Amino acid sequence: MSEKLKGAAVFGQSGGPTSVINASAYGVIKAALDAPEITKVYGMAHGIVGLLNDTLYDMGEEDPEELKLLLNTPSSALGSCRYKLKSDEDLAKILEMFKKYDIRYFFYNGGNDSMDTCSKISDYMSKVGYDCRVMGVPKTIDNDLVGTDHCPGFGSAAKYIATSIAEIHKDAYVYDTGAITIVEIMGRNAGWLTGSAALAELSDAPPDLIYLPELLFDMDAFLTDVEAVYKKKTKCLVAISEGAQFADGTFISQAKASATDGFGHAQLGGTATRLALEVNKKLGVRVRGIELSLLQRCAAHIASQTDIDEAFLAGKSAVEYALSGGTGKMVIFTRESENGKYKCGIDYEPLSICANKEKKIPREWITKEGTYVTRDFIDYVLPLIQGDNTRKQENGLPRFAKLKKVKV
Amino acid sequence: MSEKLKGAAVFGQSGGPTSVINASAYGVIKAALDAPEITKVYGMAHGIVGLLNDTLYDMGEEDPEELKLLLNTPSSALGSCRYKLKSDEDLAKILEMFKKYDIRYFFYNGGNDSMDTCSKISDYMSKVGYDCRVMGVPKTIDNDLVGTDHCPGFGSAAKYIATSIAEIHKDAYVYDTGAITIVEIMGRNAGWLTGSAALAELSDAPPDLIYLPELLFDMDAFLTDVEAVYKKKTKCLVAISEGAQFADGTFISQAKASATDGFGHAQLGGTATRLALEVNKKLGVRVRGIELSLLQRCAAHIASQTDIDEAFLAGKSAVEYALSGGTGKMVIFTRESENGKYKCGIDYEPLSICANKEKKIPREWITKEGTYVTRDFIDYVLPLIQGDNTRKQENGLPRFAKLKKVKV
Repeated sequence: MSEKLKGAAVFGQSGGPTSVINASAYGVIKAALDAPEITKVYGMAHGIVGLLNDTLYDMGEEDPEELKLLLNTPSSALGSCRYKLKSDEDLAKILEMFKKYDIRYFFYNGGNDSMDTCSKISDYMSKVGYDCRVMGVPKTIDNDLVGTDHCPGFGSAAKYIATSIAEIHKDAYVYDTGAITIVEIMGRNAGWLTGSAALAELSDAPPDLIYLPELLFDMDAFLTDVEAVYKKKTKCLVAISEGAQFADGTFISQAKASATDGFGHAQLGGTATRLALEVNKKLGVRVRGIELSLLQRCAAHIASQTDIDEAFLAGKSAVEYALSGGTGKMVIFTRESENGKYKCGIDYEPLSICANKEKKIPREWITKEGTYVTRDFIDYVLPLIQGDNTRKQENGLPRFAKLKKVKV
Repeated sequence: MSEKLKGAAVFGQSGGPTSVINASAYGVIKAALDAPEITKVYGMAHGIVGLLNDTLYDMGEEDPEELKLLLNTPSSALGSCRYKLKSDEDLAKILEMFKKYDIRYFFYNGGNDSMDTCSKISDYMSKVGYDCRVMGVPKTIDNDLVGTDHCPGFGSAAKYIATSIAEIHKDAYVYDTGAITIVEIMGRNAGWLTGSAALAELSDAPPDLIYLPELLFDMDAFLTDVEAVYKKKTKCLVAISEGAQFADGTFISQAKASATDGFGHAQLGGTATRLALEVNKKLGVRVRGIELSLLQRCAAHIASQTDIDEAFLAGKSAVEYALSGGTGKMVIFTRESENGKYKCGIDYEPLSICANKEKKIPREWITKEGTYVTRDFIDYVLPLIQGDNTRKQENGLPRFAKLKKVKV
C-alpha cells in the first residue's frame, strides 16, 4: 500500500446534483493538484460521458480562488450525466483514454449507480492489468448508500427541508379558515429526506403526518389520518415522499410514472397534487400541494456547513487513500463521538458492497402508526444539519465559482 | 396634529403572510407599548375577524425577548384573515369593540384589500364622531401598492426568488442532455416578483426568458421563444408569473381559475405544469415545471435584512405618526439617496389613494421583446434585497417567537 504511482488524475461528477457535490470536487481537485506524484488533474465534462467523448478540462488552469468557491457552489460544476456503462466497449474506450492521458488515478463522485460505474472500471483495469487507482466518493441527498453512516449532500438537503417545513408550517397555520397542506419531498425508495421534515419540531413547527416510502401507502388510511388531524386543528400539514407506493407497487403519481430516466427509474412528481385532489374530494376543504422540487438538492444558501466540511473531506480522503496505494473503494463516513459530541470519521469500503444497493430507514425509527419518525431518527439527522454555509456573496446574491474549463 | 389622545391601541395582520409582516408587528407593538398615552396594546386574533369576534390578545403580557424574535419569524404571528367588511353592521360592531376596550388607535398591516378595510373604518369613525387614529401599515410580497416606492415583504421575496433562480439555473444546466425548466412565481396582476428572477444574472445564472402579467401571454410566441433558446443552448430556464393571461383574459392555469378567495380573486397555480406539457408536446424534450409556492412568501431564513429593518420602521412610524395626531393614512416608503447610496425615507399617504389599486411594472422597464426586464428594473430591486437575516437559531434550525397570546 505504499508504492508511489506517478501519472495523471481524472475526476468526474455523476447523477443528480447536490448543494455540496462541488465541495467534494474541491477536495479531490485540491488534494490532487497538491500531490507531487500526480502530474496532471483532469476534470471530465459531464462525468463518464466526457471521458468516453474525450472531453476533459485541465483543472490546473483554474484560478485557485475560483476553485475554492466550489465549496459554496451548488450542482455539478463540471456537468453531470446519467450514463450507465453499456459494455466492454465502453470500458475499452476508457482504457484507451487512460493510456492517452497517462491517467493513473480515477475519482468518481456519485450515488449507487455511479459506484457501479466505478466498480466496473476498477474490475476491468485489474483484469487487463492496467496499473491505476479507482476511488468512489459518495454523494446523494437521498442518504441511501450502503456501507456509510450517512452521505454527503444529505445534511444540506435535510436542513433545507426541516427549515422549509418549519416556515411552511407558520404559513399553513395562519388563517382562521380550514387548510390542509401537503408537501412532496424527494427520495425514490428511502425516506431519509421526508423523515427530516420532523426536525421542524425543534422549531415548534412540525408536520402533523409523515408518509415514507419504507411503508406501503394506503389511501383510505391516509384520508382517515388527515381527517382526524383536521377535525382537531382545522389544519393539517403532511410531508409525503415522492416515492410512496401502494401495495401493488404503483406510485401515487402514476400518471407520470411511465417516463424513465437513463437508469430505468420512474420519473416521479405530482404526488402532492394527486393527494390534494383526493383530500379535497373527501373533506371539501382547501388543500394546497407543494412540491419542494429541485431546490431541496440545490439550495446551497442554506447548506449545512457540517455537510460542506464532510463533503470536502470525503474528496480529499479519496485522493490521500489512492496516493497511499488504495483502490477499488468508496470513502465512507463513520459516526464517532468526541467529548460526547458528534464527530465524523473516515473509512473505506469495497465499491462492490456500495454499488446498486439502497439503505432504508430502519422500521424501529418509524412510529408504530407509521406516520412519523422517532426521536432516534431525529438524533441521527440533527448533527448533520449544523452550521450555516459561510458563503461568498456579491450584491446580496450568491457568488458562484467561475471556472474557465480549459479543454485539453 | 399635536393633541395627546389617551386610550388603548389595537393591531392586526391581514392577507397573505410575508417573511417580514411580524417585523412590522414588532414595530407597532413595541412603539405602542413604549408610548405613555397608550394604555393597553391589543392584538387581533386573525385580523379584523378577531376584532369582530371579540378575540383580542393582551400584548403587554408577552415576554419582550419573545416579541423581539418577531423580527425573524415569518407569517402572521397573530393569525391572518381574508375578510372583506360586509356592511355598516360590521363597522358598527367595530365601533362597539372600540368603545368596549377604549380603543383610540387602530393599526392594520396588509395589502390593498386591507387598506380598503382601514379606509372604511377611518371614514366610519369620522362620520360617527368617535375620536381615534387609524393607520395602515403596508405589506405585500407583490409590491403592487400604489403610493409607496416599494412594499415591506417584497425585498425578502425578491431575494428568495433571485437566489433560488440562480441555484435552479445551476441545477437545470447540469446535464449533457436537453432540459427545459419553467418556474412559476407569485404575483396576481403585477410582475415585480417574477421580474426579480432577473437579478440572478448578478450570480451569472439568470433565467433565459421572463413572462410578466403586465403583457398578454401568447402561447405560440412563447413556444417559439423557448424553442429558439433551446436550439442555441439545449437548455432553457423560464420564469413565469402565475398571473400571466391570454388576450381573452383567461389565466394559463384555467383549470384552477374557478375557485376564488374571500375577495373574489381567482386562486392561481398550475401555470408551470400546464406550460411544461405544452412545451413537451411541441419540442419532445424533458421539461420540468416548478412552482415556488408558499416558500417565496415565508422563507424567512433568507429574508433581506434591509426589508426587515424597513418593515419594522413602517410599523414604528405608524405609531409615531398616530401619536402626533395623524390618522387616515398609510405609511409609505420614499427612495432617498445618501452619499450616492440608497436610503429609505418614510412618508404618509391618504388610505383612500392606496386602497384597492395596483401598481404594475412600467412598460419601459420591460424589454421591447417583452421577455425580460431592463437594467432599470434590476437597479430598482437591488437595494431592497441587501443584507442577510441575522436570525436566532437553535439546533441549526430557526428559533421563532413563542407568544403566549393571552386573551382579554
